[in-house]
Amino acid sequence: MNEFELIAQWTKSLPGNASVIVGAGDDCAVLDSGQSGRYLLLKTDAVVEGIHFSPEAEAEQIGHKAMGRCLSDIAAMAGRPIAALITMALPAKFDPKFLGRIYTGMNRLAEQHGVAIVGGETTTNPERLLISISLLGDVPADKCILRSGAKGGDAIFVTGELGGSLAGRHLQFEPRLAEARWLAETFPIHSMIDVSDGLAGDLRHLLTAGKVGAELLAQAIPISRAAKMQAKAESSAKSPLLAALSDGEDFELLFTVAGRDAVPLLDAWKKQFPKIRLSCIGKITSATGLKLRDKTGVRSFEAHGYVHFA
Amino acid sequence: MNEFELIAQWTKSLPGNASVIVGAGDDCAVLDSGQSGRYLLLKTDAVVEGIHFSPEAEAEQIGHKAMGRCLSDIAAMAGRPIAALITMALPAKFDPKFLGRIYTGMNRLAEQHGVAIVGGETTTNPERLLISISLLGDVPADKCILRSGAKGGDAIFVTGELGGSLAGRHLQFEPRLAEARWLAETFPIHSMIDVSDGLAGDLRHLLTAGKVGAELLAQAIPISRAAKMQAKAESSAKSPLLAALSDGEDFELLFTVAGRDAVPLLDAWKKQFPKIRLSCIGKITSATGLKLRDKTGVRSFEAHGYVHFA
Repeated sequence: MNEFELIAQWTKSLPGNASVIVGAGDDCAVLDSGQSGRYLLLKTDAVVEGIHFSPEAEAEQIGHKAMGRCLSDIAAMAGRPIAALITMALPAKFDPKFLGRIYTGMNRLAEQHGVAIVGGETTTNPERLLISISLLGDVPADKCILRSGAKGGDAIFVTGELGGSLAGRHLQFEPRLAEARWLAETFPIHSMIDVSDGLAGDLRHLLTAGKVGAELLAQAIPISRAAKMQAKAESSAKSPLLAALSDGEDFELLFTVAGRDAVPLLDAWKKQFPKIRLSCIGKITSATGLKLRDKTGVRSFEAHGYVHFA
Repeated sequence: MNEFELIAQWTKSLPGNASVIVGAGDDCAVLDSGQSGRYLLLKTDAVVEGIHFSPEAEAEQIGHKAMGRCLSDIAAMAGRPIAALITMALPAKFDPKFLGRIYTGMNRLAEQHGVAIVGGETTTNPERLLISISLLGDVPADKCILRSGAKGGDAIFVTGELGGSLAGRHLQFEPRLAEARWLAETFPIHSMIDVSDGLAGDLRHLLTAGKVGAELLAQAIPISRAAKMQAKAESSAKSPLLAALSDGEDFELLFTVAGRDAVPLLDAWKKQFPKIRLSCIGKITSATGLKLRDKTGVRSFEAHGYVHFA
């Protein structure tokens, strides 16, 4: 048993209570606080200097990313963000103006989505800046979309374009809150997640939660310009398709609907969000496992995992 | 303007929205999510290795302290904790068994108070362990006790004994959740805070929020055995009284009630919580400023601040 399996074991038997609708393991926790017709959503997410952003990153963008990651998880439940707490763990030497610009980036994105920043704390982390954000949201109880719920025959959709996020998009992405709420209100979405670990990794989360499999169409996967540029610029770079499947930090929505809803959904989306690409990239299969269909046939990812498959 | 004044300036103009009853600046944020008769409470608190606990501390106690600090803030609003999220920022090398025992300490205290642990995340903080906990709670809207609300003539009470917490109690304290809820249900409490910065420091928070002053009775301040022992053991140590006023991390309740309620409250408390000391330590004054009355007369703390007054 490795270290992370041990952690998984300990976190499996966490204390619960009657308020818990969904505990650890989805994009947000879902709680019933007794309010009729609505569930609360709770999420926390941290960014660490040198891990999630380089010390050279623009301060506003660091703040934007820290807030955006949490908001993207609320979006993945089709929720509405309400209030945030900010924990700033500051190194021994920090530039207060740099910190001010981080707040500028956080506050701007929070305001844009109607989120109040209601407190938090400033503490010490001597070697590096760590920002942890906690977000409270809510969602109509009958419109909360979980990771589980994908069914054989579902069409798989993804918003935007994938791959190459580290070239810049990971600091500038717009969390898909309005899009997710529109989806949940307009169509019976079966399952949803935001793409943070990479398309293949996050699709696996949907498949595991739904006890289903999937077949992706290689040519339908929307590949970002950044991923294509990187592949051209460096001979050692990933292929654009692999980048789209595995890079992560895209913060797009990945969701499934019944096959019969696929075409009406695409049509309605184009009218509602004409500037945001939406792609049907494959289908859910009753048989478990993740397969990729391209010109050469169908390949299975099962044996070696998504990080090694190409 | 120093660095922390700059931070205070930036955090003053945080985005708000209609849900915010109390934002940054009290023990918890207070939110109206639309549920009739109840407010939500939101709190986050972090402990950092080498800052809030030594690397040699017992793992269960680290977990206990991390959870207890947040619970103590919910207690300070007379609230009920509901659900927690745990952020574990792990150094490059960590002992998974040590981490497991931290969870044991956190889970035990959470279960004891009916708190569900509903998620969180594991991330990397290369040089040291950092644990950040976010806590959601709620409180009847008419029983939520704020820091503000102290009035001239109020009696000032504190639970337990103060000072010398670093000798051990800071890792073992029991958050005063049941006591605080009983207080709010039984008497009209005017203001309340938990003692984390030290009696004098936290009393100042009440005074500032209420725009009032206070006169403390030196001989009424409950001094812990640990503070007395430390003063005896080291000639360079603080006096026991100064330790009780300034050490911090006591996690006791400090609150005020109308003078006429002081004696009935003490009587009722003794019946309800016979094992927990409750002390009336002075009174709120309409004139601002913090004064200490002892055998030699009345001294003012105003000019030099609580850390220097002895």
